[in-house]
Formats: sequence, C-alpha cells, structure tokens
Amino acid sequence: MKFKIGDTESISKTFTKEDVIKFSEISLDVNPIHLDEEYAKNTVFGKNIVHGILVSGLFSAIIANKLPGPGSIYLTQELNFKKPVFHDELVTAKVEIIDIRQDKPIIKLTTTAYNSNNELVIEGYAVVKVLS
Amino acid sequence: MKFKIGDTESISKTFTKEDVIKFSEISLDVNPIHLDEEYAKNTVFGKNIVHGILVSGLFSAIIANKLPGPGSIYLTQELNFKKPVFHDELVTAKVEIIDIRQDKPIIKLTTTAYNSNNELVIEGYAVVKVLS
Repeated sequence: MKFKIGDTESISKTFTKEDVIKFSEISLDVNPIHLDEEYAKNTVFGKNIVHGILVSGLFSAIIANKLPGPGSIYLTQELNFKKPVFHDELVTAKVEIIDIRQDKPIIKLTTTAYNSNNELVIEGYAVVKVLS
Repeated sequence: MKFKIGDTESISKTFTKEDVIKFSEISLDVNPIHLDEEYAKNTVFGKNIVHGILVSGLFSAIIANKLPGPGSIYLTQELNFKKPVFHDELVTAKVEIIDIRQDKPIIKLTTTAYNSNNELVIEGYAVVKVLS
C-alpha cells in the first residue's frame, strides 16, 4: 500500500448561508437553527449554525479526493459534534491515517475539524477500503 | 421527558443527480463515483452512487424535525455504510429511541436507512441532547 501511518491531509471551507439553504433542501433537514435568524437568537447558539453533517462532508471530500483518494470506499464514520460551526466561519477538516490492516486494504483515520480559532468542532474516526 | 424507549420516526427521499451535484458543490466532495457515469461503470458499484454523508442527512432531518424535533442538539452520529445508494433510488431513514439517560436530557437512537428492496444501506447510532 502506498500509504503509511501518520499520513495526513486537510481541506478548508467557509460555509455560507446559501450552502446551508441548499443542504436543507437536499437533506430535508430544515431545522430553523440553520436557517432562521430570529429563531437562532433565542437558542443556546445565538446565531445560525451549519448542519454538522454538512461540515462532515469535508471528511468525505478529503477521503474521496486526497487521502486515500479516488477508488476508496467509505465503510464507517464516527462523528462527535463538539462545538457549533457558524455561517461564514472558516472550517478546516483534517484526516490522519492511524492504522493500516495487514490482511485487507483497509485503513483507519482520525477525522477532526477546527474553526478559525483552532477550536475542535468535530472529532471522530473513519474506516476506508482502498481499491486502487 | 415526553419521549420513551421504542419511539420511532422515519422519512423517505429519492436523491436525484441534481441533489448529488449540489452536495458535491457545497461539500467539495467531487468524487467521480457520484458524478461521472463512465467512471462509475468501471467500478465495483457499476453506477453512480449518492454520497453516504448526504444520505445520512436524513437522520439529521428526522432528529431536527420529528424525533426529538426542534430544540435538539446533535452530539454524536456513528455511521456504517453497508450498501451503496444509487441515484433515483428511494431511501427510507428510521430512528428509534433505545436509551434515555436519567441524569441528563440525553437520548440515544438507532439510525438505520433502507433502500427500496428493504436492504439495510446505513446503520448506526445517534446521541442527542433535548433542550425543550
């Protein structure tokens, strides 16, 4: 396998209100915490937040495009939502290989995302099969 | 708490190619398995598939809109991608409460999704805090 433990990749994105509206439409998750400014003011978050699952799409993006890249098959993803991600806030997602199975082309990665203050917003693990 | 173990809710959706294109744009996951018909023909799947994370958005939708509904805070989500979901295929996502903490307003749910042949495509668990 062309990968080794410790290999890492990252991707950054600022999710806009338009991104959040699009995701609400395609996922059917129309929670007002994501969309309604007045509603959000009266919640613990105070402002509209990005769907956690949408932010987690960045892990899928890294896995698909960079590490291990095209030809990989997503087997599992564990997500712990630690802090909210607000609209127009830069998020950086990172993956790092922490285990490579000897018997099968299966790798385990940590998946972490940080806000612009470098605070951990999502942490978890992914397991991916590498076909190519 | 107004919920009890065994409470269940579901939601169904058919993801179109347009949905998949939109999610590729907002998540940055432009894996050709989701978008390129010719590429997909030469993979183990044979056809374009929907992003697993996008399908998982249905769990977020149920949790946000139905069970426990508005005011809930998503703490964790575990996802096991068992089978591919193809474009234009009806998917039904279900959640069921399996645990309610006595000390805190925190509930654990199973999260499962099925294709139109009633085959399990995603299984996992969510943990949600209920504020209202």
